[in-house]
Amino acid sequence: MTEVCGTSRIAGCQFTLFPMSDQFVDIILSSLEEVDSSKVWKDTDDVTTCVRGKMVHVFDVVKAIYLHAAKTGEHVAMSGTFSIGCPGDNEADVYMDETDQAINKEKSDTISQPAGCKFSLYPMGREDYMDKIYEQIDLSKARGVEVSASHYATRLDGEVNDIFNALEESFVKVQEKVSHVTMTFTISANSPSTKK
Amino acid sequence: MTEVCGTSRIAGCQFTLFPMSDQFVDIILSSLEEVDSSKVWKDTDDVTTCVRGKMVHVFDVVKAIYLHAAKTGEHVAMSGTFSIGCPGDNEADVYMDETDQAINKEKSDTISQPAGCKFSLYPMGREDYMDKIYEQIDLSKARGVEVSASHYATRLDGEVNDIFNALEESFVKVQEKVSHVTMTFTISANSPSTKK
Repeated sequence: MTEVCGTSRIAGCQFTLFPMSDQFVDIILSSLEEVDSSKVWKDTDDVTTCVRGKMVHVFDVVKAIYLHAAKTGEHVAMSGTFSIGCPGDNEADVYMDETDQAINKEKSDTISQPAGCKFSLYPMGREDYMDKIYEQIDLSKARGVEVSASHYATRLDGEVNDIFNALEESFVKVQEKVSHVTMTFTISANSPSTKK
Repeated sequence: MTEVCGTSRIAGCQFTLFPMSDQFVDIILSSLEEVDSSKVWKDTDDVTTCVRGKMVHVFDVVKAIYLHAAKTGEHVAMSGTFSIGCPGDNEADVYMDETDQAINKEKSDTISQPAGCKFSLYPMGREDYMDKIYEQIDLSKARGVEVSASHYATRLDGEVNDIFNALEESFVKVQEKVSHVTMTFTISANSPSTKK
């Protein structure tokens, strides 16, 4: 069932965009079209979208897709899993030659959109995985986000750009120490529910 | 940021229901109301719902909530993470005294609803975690579901009831061998996209 782990430092994210709206098809397609995903390998089916490549571009593309959907003002959520250290194949390795310039950043930075996010980090294959989480993550320094504890997860509230920056920083720090790391997240914007 | 692991065998699932419809509020609320969650600890905020208790009831409740939402015929997805071995507190331990009878099963079994699902298993704290995945999971025996490989995940297609049965069996088998296990999933029904 499970793919064999490789040694490449290719990162990936499998995610789904959820616009809670009758216009969900238009919102999903226009977000996917509006974002420049030329620096990542990308595949979409009816359950998830998967992007793979350099970490900087994986985060750049996922964040941009979410921002472009959320800025419609509809209640839009996204759930996904970032992963590094277990690529399974070499099909997307060609994308590791891209330059480090995040091509969607300039446009993303202009979008102000508050959101709430819960995420969990899973360093794999280490008996001291909890220590690695504690050691590497100091979210007290995360700029612009409010951090709180939640069951099985950590909650971040703030601007979407700041939330994704905090996610990326945490992920980058843990994967420097642990070869195979996954990070799950659910982010939600424009919810009619009052935050507890 | 992260809660300290405990030793209780309480299971939990943090999930979000995503009806891609203007009626998302009604669909979410009516599903949460229609399902009997008296045998699990439950908490909902604007990002996720968390249920905790005996494994059988956690799966029973999550499956029932999804089924009741999907049977509306709307495009409805759910993403979440099942977890065992890291409860973090004792608040929900009282639910471990419930009997094993799954109270929503009879109603759920009457609902026929095809869906597609991608899931990933993460046995924590073991250097041989990949072996544990291979050893414990034999999805070739999963009844009623079509199994295929996907990036970072395994895909299951079939009836929602059969998909959740396969998820539960896989999770149960791995947690018998590995103390702390998490399993992420995204399930989607009534999607207008043609399956690739």
